[in-house]
Amino acid sequence: MSERPVGPSPGLMAEAPLDRADVERAEHELAGRVWRTPVVRCDPLDATAGARLWLKAENLQRGGSFKVRGALLAVDELARAGTRGVVAQSTGNHAIAVALAAREHGLPAVLVLPSDAPPAKIRRIRDTGAGVVTTGTLLAERVAVVEELRERYGYDTVDPYQNPRVVLGQATATAELLGQVAAEGARLDAVVVPVGGGSAIAGACLAASGSGTAVIGAEPEAVPALTAALRAGRPVTVPARHTVADGLRPDRIGALPFDLAGRAVTSVVTVPEASIADALRAAFLHARLVVEPAAATALAAALAHAADHGGEVGVLLSGGNVEPSLIASMLAAQSGPV
Amino acid sequence: MSERPVGPSPGLMAEAPLDRADVERAEHELAGRVWRTPVVRCDPLDATAGARLWLKAENLQRGGSFKVRGALLAVDELARAGTRGVVAQSTGNHAIAVALAAREHGLPAVLVLPSDAPPAKIRRIRDTGAGVVTTGTLLAERVAVVEELRERYGYDTVDPYQNPRVVLGQATATAELLGQVAAEGARLDAVVVPVGGGSAIAGACLAASGSGTAVIGAEPEAVPALTAALRAGRPVTVPARHTVADGLRPDRIGALPFDLAGRAVTSVVTVPEASIADALRAAFLHARLVVEPAAATALAAALAHAADHGGEVGVLLSGGNVEPSLIASMLAAQSGPV
Repeated sequence: MSERPVGPSPGLMAEAPLDRADVERAEHELAGRVWRTPVVRCDPLDATAGARLWLKAENLQRGGSFKVRGALLAVDELARAGTRGVVAQSTGNHAIAVALAAREHGLPAVLVLPSDAPPAKIRRIRDTGAGVVTTGTLLAERVAVVEELRERYGYDTVDPYQNPRVVLGQATATAELLGQVAAEGARLDAVVVPVGGGSAIAGACLAASGSGTAVIGAEPEAVPALTAALRAGRPVTVPARHTVADGLRPDRIGALPFDLAGRAVTSVVTVPEASIADALRAAFLHARLVVEPAAATALAAALAHAADHGGEVGVLLSGGNVEPSLIASMLAAQSGPV
Repeated sequence: MSERPVGPSPGLMAEAPLDRADVERAEHELAGRVWRTPVVRCDPLDATAGARLWLKAENLQRGGSFKVRGALLAVDELARAGTRGVVAQSTGNHAIAVALAAREHGLPAVLVLPSDAPPAKIRRIRDTGAGVVTTGTLLAERVAVVEELRERYGYDTVDPYQNPRVVLGQATATAELLGQVAAEGARLDAVVVPVGGGSAIAGACLAASGSGTAVIGAEPEAVPALTAALRAGRPVTVPARHTVADGLRPDRIGALPFDLAGRAVTSVVTVPEASIADALRAAFLHARLVVEPAAATALAAALAHAADHGGEVGVLLSGGNVEPSLIASMLAAQSGPV
């Protein structure tokens, strides 16, 4: 596993259009509509990490991931504007979240997922009554189908990376974590966040701005889209190699997330597949939490690198929508050193 | 699954030696030494139960179960009195808890478990440095070994059912739950608690006394020790049939727990093995919590009977020390209707 510190700004970027005050307004809008998920502490994981880990258990969130935060804010706005329906592409969790938000407003929704999306995620969407379309495994393929559906039905798109209200909603997960840790009389030295399309890390950078808390990204070694973007100074498409972390398969960081996170992120950890599996098992065996591989990617980065960043480290356990069969096979497999 | 309401007092009993004020003192003594475990909400489980369930996630507690609460209080007292070491029998979780408490005081500990105890529980005890002795599967066999060890080493016994400080410690789990629900502006109509040797339900009755919250016991249909005791008007030994809920295998309710709970408990639900397995899967798939079968027994009773007791029902998810292989096989098995 390797960690890449982020140096000075890789180039001029557009002025960030969002700030900490927007996050506070978003928290206010979401109050009572999403769970205030717990922050879980776990002695054996702390011992492995050599730091106190504060696990923000968004795997226990409505819809099984933190994505419901951004989807609610975005769909609220579209509903107020009189939308006829919504369409969105996603590796799964944003789609579940948009389906739940649309149902709350009585709006039709069609969600576009990759053909290799976990059946559990597709089932959750269908359970809301929303439509599901599957296409190829590449982000660009899904975006093309979304555009086609948008035109055909006259629906509005809820983009998982480019919609500012989605990013603000995702930011509330980190903001809530910072507040919960403060309520315990502590202060986070760093927070570790998984990186897929980038809304989580962009949100974390917004939420942590001015707090003195470092933001560390965690992405699969197989799909290092943020690492590549930081190197290039702009979002670039990386080769789509396979990772068990289905939620982190987007092969390109969104432009808005990169604008927000590109300068603010402290470092990015690229996590090998074996470490993702070990962390998923560790969450299960020691923290007794069912997490999906995306969340385990952040935990893996924290277990390996938290001590480099100080004594108090938050981890965004982003979701828990995992195939039971994957858990069963991972429990059966030889465990790593965790 | 059948629920047995508890009628008028089955006979005269000794005056209860403990009360709600003792529980408050116990909470104060434990503050900062045990996790304030979260109360988890879960829409799909609420839909199944037809009530709002408030899941007290003591599976996330130190040592993996609520038992650390009582063990700390009891071992604190023995340490203050200058004990040379401690010995205790248990199906597993009380033994883990006593081992942790003894380590905190630098005391030697020997724990007596049944020969069919889950290897994961035995491993957790050995990890603390404490000694483990396994014997037959019956409570009476373990008690005899404890007595022998106590005499041989001059250690003090930490009885899981008869020690008032153990019962007070266990009571703090329910007291904390009631407080957490009140902080959310709600009030529990009932709380469902698993019944093994009886310390959890005795503690729950103490914690809930005067609150208007009904206390409902949940025990495996295979080992209905509380149901039998209520029928007889005193603790009786029931045939030791097999249940997957290893923590609920004690074949007799302790005398102190029966004194405390016999009159105060509202009803007892006997839970079939298949419902325990279904509830364990439901906790995993919907609440994303890893619970052991004892905790799943309480959840199963709540899913089936919560709606009979009102709209707001607490569930003590007592522990999460479960064999990974058991979870793997349960996930592979055909799921029930939950």
